[in-house]
Amino acid sequence: MQNATHRVVVVGGGFGGLRVVAGLRGAPVEVTLVDRRNFHLFQPLTYQVATGALSPGEITYPLRAIFKRQRNVRVLLAEVRDFDLDARVVRLGSMSGVPTPEEVHYDSLVVAGGSAYSYFGHDDWRAYGVEVKSIESALAARGRLLAAFEAAEATPHEADRYAWLTFVVVGGGPTGVEMAGQIGELALDTLRRDFRNIDPRSARILLVEATDRVLTSFPPSLSSKAERSLQRLGVTVLTGRTVVGIDDDGVTLADGDGATERVASRVVIWAAGVTASGLAGRLGELTGAERDRAGRVTVEPDLTLPGHAEVFAIGDMVRVRDSNGEAKLLPGVAPVAMQQGRHAARVIRARLAGDPHEPFRYRDKGNLATIGRAAAVADIHGLKLSGFLAWMTWLLVHLWYLIGFQNRLLVLIRWSVSFLTHGRGARLIGTGSEPR
Amino acid sequence: MQNATHRVVVVGGGFGGLRVVAGLRGAPVEVTLVDRRNFHLFQPLTYQVATGALSPGEITYPLRAIFKRQRNVRVLLAEVRDFDLDARVVRLGSMSGVPTPEEVHYDSLVVAGGSAYSYFGHDDWRAYGVEVKSIESALAARGRLLAAFEAAEATPHEADRYAWLTFVVVGGGPTGVEMAGQIGELALDTLRRDFRNIDPRSARILLVEATDRVLTSFPPSLSSKAERSLQRLGVTVLTGRTVVGIDDDGVTLADGDGATERVASRVVIWAAGVTASGLAGRLGELTGAERDRAGRVTVEPDLTLPGHAEVFAIGDMVRVRDSNGEAKLLPGVAPVAMQQGRHAARVIRARLAGDPHEPFRYRDKGNLATIGRAAAVADIHGLKLSGFLAWMTWLLVHLWYLIGFQNRLLVLIRWSVSFLTHGRGARLIGTGSEPR
Repeated sequence: MQNATHRVVVVGGGFGGLRVVAGLRGAPVEVTLVDRRNFHLFQPLTYQVATGALSPGEITYPLRAIFKRQRNVRVLLAEVRDFDLDARVVRLGSMSGVPTPEEVHYDSLVVAGGSAYSYFGHDDWRAYGVEVKSIESALAARGRLLAAFEAAEATPHEADRYAWLTFVVVGGGPTGVEMAGQIGELALDTLRRDFRNIDPRSARILLVEATDRVLTSFPPSLSSKAERSLQRLGVTVLTGRTVVGIDDDGVTLADGDGATERVASRVVIWAAGVTASGLAGRLGELTGAERDRAGRVTVEPDLTLPGHAEVFAIGDMVRVRDSNGEAKLLPGVAPVAMQQGRHAARVIRARLAGDPHEPFRYRDKGNLATIGRAAAVADIHGLKLSGFLAWMTWLLVHLWYLIGFQNRLLVLIRWSVSFLTHGRGARLIGTGSEPR
Repeated sequence: MQNATHRVVVVGGGFGGLRVVAGLRGAPVEVTLVDRRNFHLFQPLTYQVATGALSPGEITYPLRAIFKRQRNVRVLLAEVRDFDLDARVVRLGSMSGVPTPEEVHYDSLVVAGGSAYSYFGHDDWRAYGVEVKSIESALAARGRLLAAFEAAEATPHEADRYAWLTFVVVGGGPTGVEMAGQIGELALDTLRRDFRNIDPRSARILLVEATDRVLTSFPPSLSSKAERSLQRLGVTVLTGRTVVGIDDDGVTLADGDGATERVASRVVIWAAGVTASGLAGRLGELTGAERDRAGRVTVEPDLTLPGHAEVFAIGDMVRVRDSNGEAKLLPGVAPVAMQQGRHAARVIRARLAGDPHEPFRYRDKGNLATIGRAAAVADIHGLKLSGFLAWMTWLLVHLWYLIGFQNRLLVLIRWSVSFLTHGRGARLIGTGSEPR
C-alpha cells in the first residue's frame, strides 16, 4: 500500500453504485461518488409516479443525506465526459449549472452507469414514446396520461375521443406489464367518477409484446396468470406483434407474417429494448473488451475490465465472463447491481489488505412483478406464487429496499389509502407535459 | 326563474372558487369550474415545497376528484381568454394541449383569478428572482436553493463560494418570513453534515423589507418576536431597504436616505408586491369598475360588478365597497377568499329561491405566520401568541384546511419526521431548474 490514501471513484448513484460506497464504510479509502443528479432514484417504483400513485419525493433520497455520516465519502454533482485509464483520471462536465472539477483522479474506479430504453435503431420514435425511467420522464408520462383523459372529455369528435382513450404500452417486461396494469386501474377505478362526457372504463389499453408471452423471465405458467390479471384490468395483450411505426396519430403493428395493423392512439408508453450507458461502450473502446448489441461491455469474473484490474464496471451495462470464459447476461434488475456493487467493494478492500478474493457469483433470490391490486407473480427458487400472496411479497420487498424510514412510511400510507379508496393521490398535470 | 337549468361558471379552482362550487352542492344549477391546472393548490404551504419539506402531490388535490360526487359540476381544463358580459359568455383557450370549447355560457359568473407577485414596474427582474407561488415556481426555487449549496461546495473560488451561500429574500410578509426561516433551517440543520468543503451554517440569509418591520399585518410586538426567531435561524433582517437592482451576480439595496449597497448573491427569492390577475383588470374595463394600482377591481358590497349583478369577483384580485361606498382592501389570505366564495354561492342560491341576501361581511378569525421549528406568531382577536403554542395552532389550522385525508396524514408524517430528525425529505434538484 502506498502512503497516500487510496482514492476510489464511483460513477453512478443507482443500486450498484450505492452498494460500492456503502461497502467501503470504514475502509482506509477516500471515496468520490459522481452522479448527474443529487438523488438516488428507487427505479422499480418509477412507474407508480407515472400514474400518480406516488410522488417523486417518496421514491428518491438525496445522495448526500445517504452518506452524510460516512465521512470517507464526498459526492460530486457532475456528469462523466470521458476516462483516461492510463492517467487514472475521470473527466467531468457540469450538471445543473453547478461548477465541477474538470477531472478527478482514482486508484480504483467503479462505473455503474445503468441503461436506457432502445428504439431498435429508430431514434426518431423517441419523440413520440413516453418513458418511465427517470423521474422527469415519469412526470411527463403522468401529464400525458391524465391529459389524454381530459382531452377525451373535452373533444366533440368521436374519433378523437377513441384515439385519446387508446393507450399503447410497448414491451411486455415487468415495466410494461406494471404500466398497463396501472393504466387499467386508473381507468377502471381511480377516474371512474371524474368525468361527465366520457366513461373512463371505455379506455382501450393495448400491451404489445414481440415474443409469444409477457414476462419472459418468468415460467410460462406465471406469464399466463399475469395475462389473465391484465385482462381483468381491461388490458388487451397483443403478443407476437412488433411496432413498425409511430407518429402523432398512433402506432403501426406487424405480426409474425408481416401483416400490419394501424392503431389510432395519442399516448404510447415505451418500455422495450435496452441500450447500455455510453460509458460501457467507452470502457470497451479503451480496453478492447467485448461489447454486445445492446452496448454492454463484458467484464472479467471479478467485474474488472481486461488489463485494468483497478477498473470495475457493474450493473445492467455489463455482461460478466464466467469461469469458462463465456460472457453471461444477468437480468437487468436491482439485486444483480447491488450484489455486484458489494462485490466490487469487497475486492477493493481485499486488495488493500493483501487478501485474496473470489470471483463474482450471482445469488438469484427470485423474481417479482406486480400487475395491480392484489395481483402479482413471484418465482422464488422454483416456488411459483401469484395473486395476493405474491403481491404482499412484492410490497414488502419493495418497502424494505426503499431508502429512508420516512419514504417507507409515506409509501405504505399511499398504498394503503389507494387500496382502500381506489384513489391515486398525486395526479398533477405539469405545465411541461403537453400532450401531442 | 327560466325553465332551463341556471348555468354557473366559476373561474379559478383556488380557495375562493372551490367554496363557490361546494356552496352550490344540491342547488338547481349546472356548475362549470374552469381552471388552467387540473388541481387545487394549497398555496400557504408552497414555500415548504420550495425547501424540500413537502412534495407537490401532498399539497395539491385533483379538482375532478374534489367534485367527483357533486354531479352538478363539470370541470374544464382551460384558460380564460376574455369575457363577453352582454352575451354572457366566457371565451376559453386551450391549456396543456387539451382541446376546449371556444366559449361557455353562463347565467351567473364568479371570477376568482388570484394574484401574482409584482416587480414594481421592473418586469425584467422577473428573470432573476425565484418565486414560491405556483408548484412549478416552487420546484424551480427548490432546485436553485439546493444547487447553490452544491455550487458552493464545488467552486474553488472563495468569492464565488460567498456569493453562492448568500440568499436574499425580498419581502417581509408571511411568505418572505417563512422562506427566510426555512432556508435558515436548511442551512443550520438539514444540510449540516452533507458537505465536505463548506459549512452550510456559514450561509448568509438576508430578509429585505421596505417598511420598518416584518409582518406588518401583525401587531409590532409580534413582528419583534418574529425578527428574534429569524435571527436565531441565522437570518439578517434588513428593514427600511428596497431593492433597486437585480442581475446575475446579486442585488442592489437602497436605504431611506438613498444610499445604496451591493450584495453578491446567486439566489434571490422574490416575495414582494402584489399584482391582481389580468381578469380583474378586464372586468374593470368592461364594467367601468374602479381599479387600484395593483390592478384589483372594486366590487359592490354583495361582491358583484357594477351594472352586472350576475357577475361576481372574489379573492385577492378585488377590493370590496363597504356600505359607505368606500373601497376596502382585505388581506390577501385564504380565509377572505373562502368566505367570499361561500357568500357568492349563497347569493346565487338566494336569488334562485327569490330570497333576499345580505352584503358580504368579513369575519376575521385571526392571523398566523410561522418562522420555523416551534416558532410562529398568531394574532387572534387581539390574543397574541408566539413560540410553540402559536406554532401548534398554525400546524393544526393548516392540516385542517388541507384537502384530502391522505394529504393530511402525509404532511403530518413529514412534519413529525422533520421535527424529530431535522430532515427534509424531498430535496431533488430537477433538470429544469438550472441555477444561473
